[in-house]
Amino acid sequence: MCSNTCLSKLAVIPQLSSQSIAAIHQRIAGTPDTWTVDEIGDGNVNLVFLVSGPDGQVVVKQALPYVRSVGESWPLTARRSFFERKALEEHAVIAPEYVPRVLTFEEPAAITVMEFLGSHIVLRNGLMQSTRYPRFSDHITDFLAKTLFFTSDLFLSAAEKKAKVSLFNENVELCKITEDLIFTDPYLVDSRNRWTSPQLDSLAKAFSTDRELKVAITELKAKFLTASEALIHGDLHTGSIMVNQQETKIIDPEFACYGPMGFDVGLLLANFVLSYFSQAGLGGNPAYEQWLLQQVTEIWSEFARKFSALWDSHLQGDYLPQRLLTNGSRAYVIDQLRTDYLARVFDDSLGFAASEVIRRVLGFAHVADMERIEDPERRAVCESHALHVARELLVSHRKYTDIATVLDLIRAQRTWA
Amino acid sequence: MCSNTCLSKLAVIPQLSSQSIAAIHQRIAGTPDTWTVDEIGDGNVNLVFLVSGPDGQVVVKQALPYVRSVGESWPLTARRSFFERKALEEHAVIAPEYVPRVLTFEEPAAITVMEFLGSHIVLRNGLMQSTRYPRFSDHITDFLAKTLFFTSDLFLSAAEKKAKVSLFNENVELCKITEDLIFTDPYLVDSRNRWTSPQLDSLAKAFSTDRELKVAITELKAKFLTASEALIHGDLHTGSIMVNQQETKIIDPEFACYGPMGFDVGLLLANFVLSYFSQAGLGGNPAYEQWLLQQVTEIWSEFARKFSALWDSHLQGDYLPQRLLTNGSRAYVIDQLRTDYLARVFDDSLGFAASEVIRRVLGFAHVADMERIEDPERRAVCESHALHVARELLVSHRKYTDIATVLDLIRAQRTWA
Repeated sequence: MCSNTCLSKLAVIPQLSSQSIAAIHQRIAGTPDTWTVDEIGDGNVNLVFLVSGPDGQVVVKQALPYVRSVGESWPLTARRSFFERKALEEHAVIAPEYVPRVLTFEEPAAITVMEFLGSHIVLRNGLMQSTRYPRFSDHITDFLAKTLFFTSDLFLSAAEKKAKVSLFNENVELCKITEDLIFTDPYLVDSRNRWTSPQLDSLAKAFSTDRELKVAITELKAKFLTASEALIHGDLHTGSIMVNQQETKIIDPEFACYGPMGFDVGLLLANFVLSYFSQAGLGGNPAYEQWLLQQVTEIWSEFARKFSALWDSHLQGDYLPQRLLTNGSRAYVIDQLRTDYLARVFDDSLGFAASEVIRRVLGFAHVADMERIEDPERRAVCESHALHVARELLVSHRKYTDIATVLDLIRAQRTWA
Repeated sequence: MCSNTCLSKLAVIPQLSSQSIAAIHQRIAGTPDTWTVDEIGDGNVNLVFLVSGPDGQVVVKQALPYVRSVGESWPLTARRSFFERKALEEHAVIAPEYVPRVLTFEEPAAITVMEFLGSHIVLRNGLMQSTRYPRFSDHITDFLAKTLFFTSDLFLSAAEKKAKVSLFNENVELCKITEDLIFTDPYLVDSRNRWTSPQLDSLAKAFSTDRELKVAITELKAKFLTASEALIHGDLHTGSIMVNQQETKIIDPEFACYGPMGFDVGLLLANFVLSYFSQAGLGGNPAYEQWLLQQVTEIWSEFARKFSALWDSHLQGDYLPQRLLTNGSRAYVIDQLRTDYLARVFDDSLGFAASEVIRRVLGFAHVADMERIEDPERRAVCESHALHVARELLVSHRKYTDIATVLDLIRAQRTWA
């Protein structure tokens, strides 16, 4: 059987320019007619091919003008690949060790040719195999601290930042998906929503009529719409990260835009929380659950530590002109501002984490961590634990001012089962 | 004696295109060689001419590539006139009764030809003559509520708003002036600062080393740099408003950018507070002081009332998709969101008001309301009252949750003298 996908597989190489062919040749040798092309993508929206030649392999990623997993009934601008490349370029300057190298790019065909991460696996899959990645929290917090700090007013002049904001402001269609799928649909009756039914029917109904949740999610959405803090990845779940024991690579920043820093931190935290709550549905693995929660603690605390350190070494943006700091005030002012700043990012992160958990259980796109629990009764219990934590954090995030208290909330929910 | 200004006066008409000449002719009749040209500008940065013909008059405003009141040593992009026009165009659609009509625009020469407001005077001058404008608070709150609401996510789609944000993001040079003159310079020793000396020397010194103020002003600046809430006028003091007993016109939006709504509201409030505190230095006029404070109350309360009403009639932006509102939740959700939203705008407004008072007493640009107090001892007392209120509001704005409490603070400061 040859589907659309097969046609695309055959069609992708002929769409490449001679420069792109030359760039691939330089990396993997051989010629187009001797290369093999295999589709390897498992995401919702793009085609991803592995092109193999005598000396190696490259990844060819093509954005189609619709959502791959849905079809042409859900159109989506292929120009998202342009913003993905722009974000990868920013990241390649700021944190090059954590992103795949881009070899070439075909703007009209929306094709990006990238380094193949052959020794890495998708972090979500690694977590589902209960693999530990001892260097992961160090890497991801380095990436988060650097990409958020260096694209913000903390480091840039207002003019530099505004130019970047304007560039990524054009990525409206992808942002609109986030606005709908994260901040709206899970809180109403929408045909794109799904959940473990009938077990979670009553919870889904309760969430769709919950007035406090509607207020909280709208105030969180307002931050996403108005807070031009930093260039955020925009979709930093465990499926957007590739890992092995040595390295961590952050991929797929096509949702990149200027937004609140807590959005990236929160989505990442949420995906570890979801993975944690999925464990009970698989019989439980206390040591691995402990490791997952340890990641939650480390992601926040190491991010905060590294982000703080950048204030000491690189605070040169228009946020705080150095001439404002007199000798007698420098330490006090910076410490107080940093404390307030991190408290706000923490508070935002809890809100965005909660919104991610909710949309992954009640919305359109679920996570494999939960989906693999075959028994719907067990899965529903795990998912409802996650939902209860998320609702508490979304409505009452201001009550939680450190990560340890959040962990207590999570553990208490697990125990309550 | 013929200065630069004389030359410019003679030079301005020849810079106009034939279309502009025709547009002026249509309005005032006559020909360029019979028109008289008088310079009428008293602002810091532009040339403003009155061109008179047989049937009427028009205003010709030219942006020079430097700050008029300083000279070529302070270069400033003439492109600011482009953003002024863009803001006037927005306002002409949203609140046409409150802005002068633009007849024609010469982009290369940075010249705008506008309706002459011959029966209006600058509000600041009116206040200095103790004139009351019974319709002013109604007009200005209508202008504020409409221009802020209709350019925000409350009314616009995210895509529409982002396009406007990107357009005004290019107005970086004017924003930089705000960043420096309002949020930085008054809190340090800067050669552009001036104050009533030696009477305020110790206060100026105290402000330049005040650690809490440095923290507070930086957190306020961060809102200005990151909060893309609405298209703000950006310089809404009483010198940017022309009034008579019937009408109110808001002019000079060349500092327009996307920013926090409280910036416009706060600057306006601050200029009434400054005018209020100046009264004591002129011998006191209890009835007029009372009227000025009444304006402060009405500006906030009427703005809040009109802004709230727009939530009922025009809440159609991406901030709150209507489908999120189920019948049972609609009233609760909107009321709660609106209450929270207005509380935040109020809090922001107090901070920005405080920053405006401080920069008008200790910074580069002062207000004529205070400057006209000839006795420096008396002026210093008035200014120090204003500074004490401003410091309290800047550091402790969260303690003040309604306008009546702010008025108590202001009155108490006046009494203490």
